[in-house]
Amino acid sequence: MTQLDQPLRDGGTQADREADREMVHLAEAGSVGELDHYVSSLSTSEQAYALSHLDEAEIEKVLASMLPEHAAQLIGHLSEMQAAMTIAAVEPDTAASIVRELSSDEMADVIGDLDEDQAEAILNSLPQSEADAARELTAYDDQVAGGLMNRELMRFSDGMSVADVITTLSAEHDRYDEYDIRYGYVCDPVGRLIGVLPMSQLLFVKRSQSVQEIMIRAPLSVSDDLPLDDLVEFFEKHPFLGVPVVDTEGVLKGIVHREAVDYASVRASESDYLKSQGIVGGEELRNMPLWLRSRRRLSWLSVNILLNLGAAAVIAVFQETLQAVIALAVFLPIISDMSGCSGNQAVAVSMRELSLGVIRPTEMFRVWFKELSVGMINGTVLGILVGLCALLFEGNPYLGLVVGFALFANTLVAVSIGGTVPLLLKRLNVDPAVASGPLLTTITDMCGFFLVLGAATALLPKLLPV
Amino acid sequence: MTQLDQPLRDGGTQADREADREMVHLAEAGSVGELDHYVSSLSTSEQAYALSHLDEAEIEKVLASMLPEHAAQLIGHLSEMQAAMTIAAVEPDTAASIVRELSSDEMADVIGDLDEDQAEAILNSLPQSEADAARELTAYDDQVAGGLMNRELMRFSDGMSVADVITTLSAEHDRYDEYDIRYGYVCDPVGRLIGVLPMSQLLFVKRSQSVQEIMIRAPLSVSDDLPLDDLVEFFEKHPFLGVPVVDTEGVLKGIVHREAVDYASVRASESDYLKSQGIVGGEELRNMPLWLRSRRRLSWLSVNILLNLGAAAVIAVFQETLQAVIALAVFLPIISDMSGCSGNQAVAVSMRELSLGVIRPTEMFRVWFKELSVGMINGTVLGILVGLCALLFEGNPYLGLVVGFALFANTLVAVSIGGTVPLLLKRLNVDPAVASGPLLTTITDMCGFFLVLGAATALLPKLLPV
Repeated sequence: MTQLDQPLRDGGTQADREADREMVHLAEAGSVGELDHYVSSLSTSEQAYALSHLDEAEIEKVLASMLPEHAAQLIGHLSEMQAAMTIAAVEPDTAASIVRELSSDEMADVIGDLDEDQAEAILNSLPQSEADAARELTAYDDQVAGGLMNRELMRFSDGMSVADVITTLSAEHDRYDEYDIRYGYVCDPVGRLIGVLPMSQLLFVKRSQSVQEIMIRAPLSVSDDLPLDDLVEFFEKHPFLGVPVVDTEGVLKGIVHREAVDYASVRASESDYLKSQGIVGGEELRNMPLWLRSRRRLSWLSVNILLNLGAAAVIAVFQETLQAVIALAVFLPIISDMSGCSGNQAVAVSMRELSLGVIRPTEMFRVWFKELSVGMINGTVLGILVGLCALLFEGNPYLGLVVGFALFANTLVAVSIGGTVPLLLKRLNVDPAVASGPLLTTITDMCGFFLVLGAATALLPKLLPV
Repeated sequence: MTQLDQPLRDGGTQADREADREMVHLAEAGSVGELDHYVSSLSTSEQAYALSHLDEAEIEKVLASMLPEHAAQLIGHLSEMQAAMTIAAVEPDTAASIVRELSSDEMADVIGDLDEDQAEAILNSLPQSEADAARELTAYDDQVAGGLMNRELMRFSDGMSVADVITTLSAEHDRYDEYDIRYGYVCDPVGRLIGVLPMSQLLFVKRSQSVQEIMIRAPLSVSDDLPLDDLVEFFEKHPFLGVPVVDTEGVLKGIVHREAVDYASVRASESDYLKSQGIVGGEELRNMPLWLRSRRRLSWLSVNILLNLGAAAVIAVFQETLQAVIALAVFLPIISDMSGCSGNQAVAVSMRELSLGVIRPTEMFRVWFKELSVGMINGTVLGILVGLCALLFEGNPYLGLVVGFALFANTLVAVSIGGTVPLLLKRLNVDPAVASGPLLTTITDMCGFFLVLGAATALLPKLLPV
């Protein structure tokens, strides 16, 4: 895959590098249609690339020069963080005219990611009714059905005939073209959902029939406060492409599409990857302010300093042994790093199995047993290899024994902790992505240092140079 | 999110734990319909969980007791690796009857993941024509359009009228219900794609019109050997939900759905995460054979041993300094680990920006500059903090100075390497997910050890206990 995409990506570079300049150039030339046309000819990643290479004044210039609906399409293609950063760069009036062209779920995401002041400024520039609707949407948590739903849907009243439906469809063809047009939703006069109308059905019925006769009654729906994981579960059980969202009164509020739920799950796992590597404050893009990037990274690093001091304390306790057999200092980082590698492998498999659902957080013993068996083999192989290196280094078989034994034993510790800690953290409601790594590193370092230095202290007479 | 899903997942545990037993029980009771009904009442993750807790004989028993189409649904819900492992557990005859009920892209994935012998045994149990079709599909790489496409589609001939189309739709309503029914595809007598028919259009035209009059002519299509990244690019440029796939003659082979492309991209990034943590042989599930899990993990660990020996060699060179100032040994792992953390943060941001398309592999200097500025701040803060610890540890300001300086300088090294190595590897066509981590760790360890021990050697007289 990597090989195949290379020519395309690299071949595109020169043109892309000019895309940001070209956008500014067209905006300054004031040729509205041309700018819009140029932007829409770019792929979404070319658009993201170009925007990330403009400063705030240039973003303002470009977006203000585009038709609001085209600017909204551009914003809709960006990742959430970049979309919010881009909207934050333009004047509230311009921003408002763009935001109102976004689909309802995109609008909720973008406004939800802005600072409160910026969000208020934009909402205040919207017509009252639209601002109220936007406030209602952004009030939802973005991890529940209300925050993931789309308000755009085909709504029909329960008194309509098939002919009425077809006339409506025909009249509003352009508008409905953007929607998921496989289903229409039938509501009673107060807006409560009473039926679903498969559009393909319309081909096979008489035009004089009423929608009530052909609709599917009492359709499945979800409550607007249903959390993401329950939505994942819902779409796992039912093969639907979307599900209507209702409030406590049964009033139809919108549709959650399977795609939106899948996308939210992917975003959650991307965020897990970033967290596991120490980007804990959420997304970081390099055109974010320096102090923000630095502060977020430091918050993570400072926790790690404390954990590291704990591991270093073990070495401090054994300073005398270390001074007597200085060769041990050469092997300490190897034991720490190799155990870390073995432990990380176990963490990765547990995280993966948890996300596939093939293990449950309660199955600590099953996982532990499976890891111990791999750890026995791998620990033996690694212990012998590194032990041999230690033997050759000083020509002292006891040094080889101490180092080899410590690595063997610490590999068992590392895979045991690495395999089970994600399950344990999940049960304790701590995000395993954030905490697994540092916990693993600290404990395996402490154990590894203790094992090698403790064993060396016990065998000290044998290890001293003769 | 984690908090919200906890009760549901945990609450489900007891019932789930029984699901695997219940499946075996129903299979042994021989009550066919009941087993099928029970399995379909489970969510996809409950199904995955139950199957992963059955041994091969039990899997055989359960799948052989189900109707092939229901067993195929079950297989279709599993992750690729688990699907292949499950099919591999049953007799070729049973496997063949299940495999032929899979959708064409699922069948290609599952058969492609089997050992060659197993795949052949199953293909030989299929009717000749189906085996040929399956061989044609599995011959495609699973990262090109042919491997990602679905053969199931609504095909109409160019001589049909709208009335013919509606009659066909109505007659085969059940079959087409499973397809994406928004578009029909119009082919000439030799099977070449000549037009696309939006189904919603049928509502608004006369039944006597011919499909040629109302179809969209010369529709966009992709070649069956188009790689995944180009498909991603295609769907970025075009808002379609699917695109027809044609061979070099223009003959319609199938449809690639946007969803399949998204799913393949997600799988690629999940596989990147596993690789970055040292699971380099692809997916690992804990019910895979022990020797396989162990061997795959060891292949990665043994490369790391070599890299570690390189870093340890730096310490070996400075053994005398270390013996003279043993306190340095306490701070070596801190410098190594903290630099690793800073470097990993930079790696994560670069990987993320690459995947979002907001940086190109050629922008080494831009990334380096951005990382250096963060590194200056964070290196200063970390250097002062750890330097102070060193000062307090021995009461020697020079020790604080050496340790603090080394951590400051090595933080700059780590973020520079961490930020740029993924771009460099991408340009060299090496998978950045696999190689970034070990390269980073080795270089930052070597540099860190050299900086602290080199500085200590230079200032040795000041560091010796008075």
